[in-house]
Amino acid sequence: MHEVNSTIQSVQGFRVAGIAAGLKKENKLDFALILADRPCSAAAVFTTNQVKAAPVLLSQQHLQANGGHVRAVAINTASANAATGVAGLANAQTVSRWVAEQAGLQPEQVLVMSTGVIGTQLPMPKLEAGVPLAYQSLGQNWENTARAIMTTDTRPKMASVKVLTFAGEYTIAGIAKGAGMIAPNMATMLSVIVTDAKMSPSQAQVMLNGAAKVSYNRIVVDGDTSTNDAVFLLASGASGVTLETPTDMLQFQQALTALCTKLAQDIVRDGEGATKFITLDIQGAADDEVAHKIANTIATSPLVKTAFFGGDANWGRIVAAAGRAGVPFNPDQTRLWLSPGEELFEDDKGLLIFENGMPTPYKESDAADIMSETSIYVTLDCGLGSGKAMVWTCDLSNQYVAINGDYRS
Amino acid sequence: MHEVNSTIQSVQGFRVAGIAAGLKKENKLDFALILADRPCSAAAVFTTNQVKAAPVLLSQQHLQANGGHVRAVAINTASANAATGVAGLANAQTVSRWVAEQAGLQPEQVLVMSTGVIGTQLPMPKLEAGVPLAYQSLGQNWENTARAIMTTDTRPKMASVKVLTFAGEYTIAGIAKGAGMIAPNMATMLSVIVTDAKMSPSQAQVMLNGAAKVSYNRIVVDGDTSTNDAVFLLASGASGVTLETPTDMLQFQQALTALCTKLAQDIVRDGEGATKFITLDIQGAADDEVAHKIANTIATSPLVKTAFFGGDANWGRIVAAAGRAGVPFNPDQTRLWLSPGEELFEDDKGLLIFENGMPTPYKESDAADIMSETSIYVTLDCGLGSGKAMVWTCDLSNQYVAINGDYRS
Repeated sequence: MHEVNSTIQSVQGFRVAGIAAGLKKENKLDFALILADRPCSAAAVFTTNQVKAAPVLLSQQHLQANGGHVRAVAINTASANAATGVAGLANAQTVSRWVAEQAGLQPEQVLVMSTGVIGTQLPMPKLEAGVPLAYQSLGQNWENTARAIMTTDTRPKMASVKVLTFAGEYTIAGIAKGAGMIAPNMATMLSVIVTDAKMSPSQAQVMLNGAAKVSYNRIVVDGDTSTNDAVFLLASGASGVTLETPTDMLQFQQALTALCTKLAQDIVRDGEGATKFITLDIQGAADDEVAHKIANTIATSPLVKTAFFGGDANWGRIVAAAGRAGVPFNPDQTRLWLSPGEELFEDDKGLLIFENGMPTPYKESDAADIMSETSIYVTLDCGLGSGKAMVWTCDLSNQYVAINGDYRS
Repeated sequence: MHEVNSTIQSVQGFRVAGIAAGLKKENKLDFALILADRPCSAAAVFTTNQVKAAPVLLSQQHLQANGGHVRAVAINTASANAATGVAGLANAQTVSRWVAEQAGLQPEQVLVMSTGVIGTQLPMPKLEAGVPLAYQSLGQNWENTARAIMTTDTRPKMASVKVLTFAGEYTIAGIAKGAGMIAPNMATMLSVIVTDAKMSPSQAQVMLNGAAKVSYNRIVVDGDTSTNDAVFLLASGASGVTLETPTDMLQFQQALTALCTKLAQDIVRDGEGATKFITLDIQGAADDEVAHKIANTIATSPLVKTAFFGGDANWGRIVAAAGRAGVPFNPDQTRLWLSPGEELFEDDKGLLIFENGMPTPYKESDAADIMSETSIYVTLDCGLGSGKAMVWTCDLSNQYVAINGDYRS
């Protein structure tokens, strides 16, 4: 498997910057720019929310206008530029034009992302001053760039992986932000991934779709789907390594998936107020889609999430959530195990809690021990077929309520 | 309209009791019995959760076996008797048999309800002692009976209404419990309603379906649907007033709906940790079902609920939740108003916040004033059709997390 690093040294053909444009209080980093030195093959997945933010609509336009080739991504925090009407769309266009003017590009070669409060217009004078400042700061400071896209995140999220091939080495690197409004509905956050491998836009899209499906699309913080969710993949080709054979493609797909999985899991680990990392491993469902629905219903259940926060082995809530998922489910066929950790050790599912429609004679203290861990692995075998799904989620704490009850102030 | 009282004096043909059977700690009331002095026409709505508790399965059997005629309802707290397998079903049967033996009935004339922790068996020795104690305590103490079915409820929920007809007067009275695992999926709680009006079982079922659809089916606390949800309607006929004409039926339907609405709203007011009562009035949707889906998505959004708790007019979260409801929705056609209180005054929707895809130039202080109220009325006009739905919900507070993180201990 590919070893994924938690840092980014550099990626050939890309320069980045994260600066303080005065969008946030206290001179925090709040605006990021990623610039490629040549046109990149680009791919994207976007939110499925029907209230799409202006930057989502504009980036979709720009990707189409340029046949999937772009040079830059600009990301602002503080305002999501969503539910902002024609004025919001015009503002997003203006930001892309400012970036284009600085870097000598066409506006259509610039993608934009925004995150922050819904329903407030972009602070344009601050951004007008911020764009040249970011351009002058371009370099390889990936950590500052990852920090500059944070909202309620408590730490920056970045990852990189190097892939050695017969034709040479290439790098994939990505940054991401959470930490609320995270639900599994295609892209569920902001993330930009860059690589110096060479591929076509359609290759990039296939790769990104495949990776997002089993990474960003498999995490739940709170069940709300953002208006701004977007993941971009930009491939510069600067390494000279081209994806040609099916083996090349598979290798890239695996490395990209490993990278996206690391970033997605980091979003869950840093979910708003999260104190526990929970893996839901659903097996034996009628099909994979059914398994995914059961996993998502459990992952978004407030009663399940608060029980995990309280360290209470109230497993009946897990079974009850599965029962209301609106898909075939039979408690008499179902088995439920709890295990500590993020992965199973030698396929040992841990403590069997429930089978034949009733609890096993497990020891309450054994279950309590597992629930006291910061990482818990839940296996639910529905006993109905071969469908399976893996979803990562976190608990619901009083800190989540505190963060979101007072987000705008 | 029918005046609904918050107390119950007596209902002809019924005796009730709420006693302490030692199921809960500290000698709290924890077991309730309702007995009719003659066979009643009975109707019920049950949870749609596929994990149905033993008392749900048994009550369904008993209603069928007796052609919709029953004499008694027994309700225990502390254990939901759900996910308890064949042993749980046998225990529920035994409880119904104990009640039947005390009262000289057939076990099939007894309905049972349970509420409490999922996955624990009923404490049978305590119930065996509790049943005769409850039988000996039968009388008109409706408040004790309502108290004896409480779990995390902070106060008993009961209501009654008297209906005057040309043929005489009859009474409808009901008790209910919340206060978590409340989601709009048919019956969403426990409630028993009795009346001394005379009707057939099929009439009772039509009446209950109609009332539940716009009352119990319109409330959301946390979006989790219980394994035990059930609402029973028992009609003794002891008043001698029969429902014969369409006018009689309409009158009863209206009175029953008013009663159920009061009990349902009381459940929301006493929702776990709730500090605010929120009315979601969705209008102009493609159809009523679409409106209901939009209302439920808003009502179950953790981000919307925490914003209400924080008193933050973060209305963008309401629009964003509507956008992910999976039904036709166009933010450019949508208007959103906020108003204080539980009802609109002379159809004044209050402060217009959002239209034409962007915020109006409303004053932030006006919105903050409304959000600081304990009751808030939200009107969302989708501008797409004539579909509408009304849903009542509450906020999500740190107290909800505290209650549910530590429920079993």
